[in-house]
Amino acid sequence: MTDPRHNIRDIFAPTGPEISAKTWQTEAALRMLMNNLHPDVAENPHELVVYGGIGRAARSWSDFDRICDALRDLEPDETLLVQSGKPVSIIRTHADAPRVLIANSNLVPHWATWDHFNELDRKGLMMYGQMTAGSWIYIGTQGIVQGTYETFAEAGRQHYGGDLTGKWVLTGGLGGMGGAQPLAAVMAGACCLAVEVDETRIDFRLRTRYVDAKARSLDEALALIEDWTARGEAKSVGLLGNAAEVFPELLARMRGGGPRPDIVTDQTSAHDPLHGYCPAGWTVAEWRAKQETDPAGVEAAARASMRDHVAAMVGFWDAGVPTLDYGNNIRQVARDEGLINAFAFPGFVPAYIRPLFCKGIGPFRWVALSGDPEDIAKTDAAMKALFPDNQHLHRWLDMAADRIAFQGLPARICWIGLGERHRAGLMFNDMVARGELKAPIVIGRDHLDAGSVASPNRETEGMRDGSDAVSDWPLLNAMTNVASGATWVSLHHGGGVGMGFSQHAGVVIVADGTPEAARRLERVLWNDPASGVMRHADAGYEIALECARDHGLRLPGILG
Amino acid sequence: MTDPRHNIRDIFAPTGPEISAKTWQTEAALRMLMNNLHPDVAENPHELVVYGGIGRAARSWSDFDRICDALRDLEPDETLLVQSGKPVSIIRTHADAPRVLIANSNLVPHWATWDHFNELDRKGLMMYGQMTAGSWIYIGTQGIVQGTYETFAEAGRQHYGGDLTGKWVLTGGLGGMGGAQPLAAVMAGACCLAVEVDETRIDFRLRTRYVDAKARSLDEALALIEDWTARGEAKSVGLLGNAAEVFPELLARMRGGGPRPDIVTDQTSAHDPLHGYCPAGWTVAEWRAKQETDPAGVEAAARASMRDHVAAMVGFWDAGVPTLDYGNNIRQVARDEGLINAFAFPGFVPAYIRPLFCKGIGPFRWVALSGDPEDIAKTDAAMKALFPDNQHLHRWLDMAADRIAFQGLPARICWIGLGERHRAGLMFNDMVARGELKAPIVIGRDHLDAGSVASPNRETEGMRDGSDAVSDWPLLNAMTNVASGATWVSLHHGGGVGMGFSQHAGVVIVADGTPEAARRLERVLWNDPASGVMRHADAGYEIALECARDHGLRLPGILG
Ligand SMILES: NC(=O)c1ccc[n+]([C@@H]2O[C@H](COP(=O)([O-])OP(=O)(O)OC[C@H]3O[C@@H](n4cnc5c(N)ncnc54)[C@H](O)[C@@H]3O)[C@@H](O)[C@H]2O)c1
Ligand SMILES: NC(=O)c1ccc[n+]([C@@H]2O[C@H](COP(=O)([O-])OP(=O)(O)OC[C@H]3O[C@@H](n4cnc5c(N)ncnc54)[C@H](O)[C@@H]3O)[C@@H](O)[C@H]2O)c1
Repeated sequence: MTDPRHNIRDIFAPTGPEISAKTWQTEAALRMLMNNLHPDVAENPHELVVYGGIGRAARSWSDFDRICDALRDLEPDETLLVQSGKPVSIIRTHADAPRVLIANSNLVPHWATWDHFNELDRKGLMMYGQMTAGSWIYIGTQGIVQGTYETFAEAGRQHYGGDLTGKWVLTGGLGGMGGAQPLAAVMAGACCLAVEVDETRIDFRLRTRYVDAKARSLDEALALIEDWTARGEAKSVGLLGNAAEVFPELLARMRGGGPRPDIVTDQTSAHDPLHGYCPAGWTVAEWRAKQETDPAGVEAAARASMRDHVAAMVGFWDAGVPTLDYGNNIRQVARDEGLINAFAFPGFVPAYIRPLFCKGIGPFRWVALSGDPEDIAKTDAAMKALFPDNQHLHRWLDMAADRIAFQGLPARICWIGLGERHRAGLMFNDMVARGELKAPIVIGRDHLDAGSVASPNRETEGMRDGSDAVSDWPLLNAMTNVASGATWVSLHHGGGVGMGFSQHAGVVIVADGTPEAARRLERVLWNDPASGVMRHADAGYEIALECARDHGLRLPGILG
Repeated sequence: MTDPRHNIRDIFAPTGPEISAKTWQTEAALRMLMNNLHPDVAENPHELVVYGGIGRAARSWSDFDRICDALRDLEPDETLLVQSGKPVSIIRTHADAPRVLIANSNLVPHWATWDHFNELDRKGLMMYGQMTAGSWIYIGTQGIVQGTYETFAEAGRQHYGGDLTGKWVLTGGLGGMGGAQPLAAVMAGACCLAVEVDETRIDFRLRTRYVDAKARSLDEALALIEDWTARGEAKSVGLLGNAAEVFPELLARMRGGGPRPDIVTDQTSAHDPLHGYCPAGWTVAEWRAKQETDPAGVEAAARASMRDHVAAMVGFWDAGVPTLDYGNNIRQVARDEGLINAFAFPGFVPAYIRPLFCKGIGPFRWVALSGDPEDIAKTDAAMKALFPDNQHLHRWLDMAADRIAFQGLPARICWIGLGERHRAGLMFNDMVARGELKAPIVIGRDHLDAGSVASPNRETEGMRDGSDAVSDWPLLNAMTNVASGATWVSLHHGGGVGMGFSQHAGVVIVADGTPEAARRLERVLWNDPASGVMRHADAGYEIALECARDHGLRLPGILG
């Protein structure tokens, strides 16, 4: 029997000004779906896997083809419904309604476990959408670079007086998101030692210039780190190894007077104990094979290894090394495995990111549908002109232009918030209208954003009022974006931290240069970040309350 | 300290053709919110409780007032966001967008328990919305009458050759929904013995003509039943007592040769072990008081009683009496308490209702905003004319006009499906446009409907493909209704079966007689039931596949 998920086709999004769909809105969805599976973008495109363990763009290859057909066929007053990567219906709506509505991986809470999900997945009834995989706005590893950069930079400010020269970050995982860590550390001025079990992942990061060197032994890697930190050079090394072995070994060496990391984190796909974390002592081939033949055995071994891994992280934390959970739910697994102090060290959101969320600031991104890098260069320049006083933004855009290799359609990410996003969107739309760009621009964001996610072990960890688990907010966010006229809107479950632990929403909108698009852009790119300010204002954060007042938000039950 | 949830005000929706809001769309939301709290509609209006345990219309009285203010103020291109009964934001949208978007009681799955909900509820951070309580389309007990009538009638057809004369139904609970049982049984031709622990509930049903008599002892109640069944008269009695005591007692008597019920079910609020089920041996006063002072004690005692209650139901089932779970999750509680065969008897949906869902048929309802019963009489007549060949519908409408006492704003319910609902909606809109009705009509439905709910112990129990727990469907349903231009749309969690066990969506749309409303009605009242047909077609039900083909639905991944 052929596997409906396997196909050796290579997918490349069309580029240029000609479209095969009936409108740019649907052409944009088509190109972005395809771009998610571009060989330079997706982690495992032949299996439809974009990133994050088994985060897919479509449920099967025939679903992929049917989605493409539907998008090419869709009229400007029709909407395609996608259920866990399968195109289930085309309905009549209206011009200001989204062209695609997506719900991925959602399960009734009592059944919201990996076990039940995997059972449905095996039967072909579900798909894991992660965050931007199933909602067609993944843009390769760049998507995560700035977030990671902001996090490391903020950690540097809080713990090392803003200067990371001669410091080094210890981490694990060089996958779709984790691959951003070495580059982000380097951009923030630090060295980085990243432990990765799969050599192909290290090689991929070398090729795309996200990591500077590869090492096959801990001694070799530490020698490089010692050399670079001594010289004050910010460089990175990918160490072929298993984090569950290397972290404890390093901790033991440190306790014995060996080298001491300055920041410790991890980005293996711990959120998915079956597909995301290679158990200690296993080869990658063995791990992959047993995912099919002995899933329960893989899970048990992976969970035990994660416990050791987190125990080592707690050891670093206890020794005074700034240590953070980078959003893969590894602490939860370790606690479930009996490590009672697994939550000793904090998550990155309460530690470093929440003040940004309070102002609706998060990972805004845009993509040039033309396929021409020149279009992104023009938008980079335009963004600097639009926000002349934002030095932080200027610095980021310069570094990004210099160091980020585009993957698939050229794209840019930067963290901006309420009051800024709609201005950027309207400006891009004008540039398209005036013919300054060769084709329309697609604008979106991660589901990890100010108002779009409830995830008590990550984005909503330790909310001030205790409302971490309230998921009314992402549902309102999705409905708000549908009502505001986004081009596609998605509602997912289990992204980042795995089944049962999160609910979140995505939004994408096309700037095609028309006045109608301008009206939609203004609404969507205002209401979407405003929902983040509202959510944090409701929880009692002073920065959010102030931001809401400054921007004249009308929040009757919150501001009175 | 005053309780923000308690207020002795009585709320009556305005009636007549004058409005205090800026449009009929927002006036409708205002009237329907108020109508939910009308003294004849709500179970406990002074505590904002509409029905179903603690199903509320607003989080607190000040939230109620703020929602009313916001609705009066709302412009035709603005949308109010409500988060668990609290008005959190007013945003700019457009004329075809909903005027209100509601998310109630939603929790990230891992935390989706009554314990966590109650903790948030006590802190004032949440509200239980049940299904139509928090989404402002509860219309009193009538809402459930036809569903219950259809269920009993179908049971009569399956088990008693279509004739329930001389038969009797044993059940528990005469609350907001359960109160419909005696009348529905009588309409279906049977007698009914309903055990209810709270005398005020029996008296309320006597007053509204839903029950015919009250008894204070089992002997007294059985004497009435014997007398009525012997004469072939369909009548009902409310027995003051505790179902956890009466059901086992009756089973023992039956086993000893005593009277044998012909259908057994239950509609206590078992879905909420703290507020919904009075433990055996407790007085109602004691039960209410201890909900505050000893919640854990109440829950433990209630759960133990439910186990006894379900054990008796299994006893009837084993003795060959048709027995059904009527959607309150009581089997799950009993199983959690160690009753391993608690799921021996089926739920009512797979047993009797699913074939209707396959055609998008479910509890469609409409309300006369004029407040004039004459308007409903006219719509009743118009419905009969619109569907001249539907004898079942004619019979129901005649009985309803005869036996249903209106509560609050006059309303009507009838189960119709895809291809029928939009025709009814357009007809009502025409009648408003032509001035035949004194004011606009509000059209809605229960969240218990074909495409709007995932609830594996109730609406989606035993789905053919095993997709019971997949909740992508209700999320798509909500987004579809937002995109189609409904007037308000809601997304809830935990309705019917309690926290963790369901996710569901509501929709309401106003027929104000304008051509714009006609376009929205046509889209919403087509797409909404179509989503139910789609969901069941995807699960492989032949009736749904046929219905989809007959109506020309475009379901790419399903029909190919
Ligand atoms: N904080 C954030 O902003 C953020 C954003 C996205 C994702 N994440 C989370 O980070 C995690 C990684 O995401 P991703 O997209 O990179 O996933 P991925 O699956 O693409 O990559 C995970 C990598 O970890 C490697 N790995 C697995 N087990 C290992 C082990 N024991 N030792 C060393 N390496 C091991 C894998 O070979 C793989 O390359 C996920 O859990 C994701 O949810 C966090
Ligand atoms: N099948 C359906 O279509 C459907 C629809 C709506 C509701 N329901 C479910 O039915 C249940 C009842 O709903 P409702 O709106 O009537 O709730 P409700 O809370 O208004 O009424 C429950 C009634 O049960 C009584 N009661 C509690 N414990 C009792 C006991 N031990 N013995 C006898 N009586 C007892 C209460 O006094 C109350 O009057 C809920 O669980 C609800 O979710 C089913």
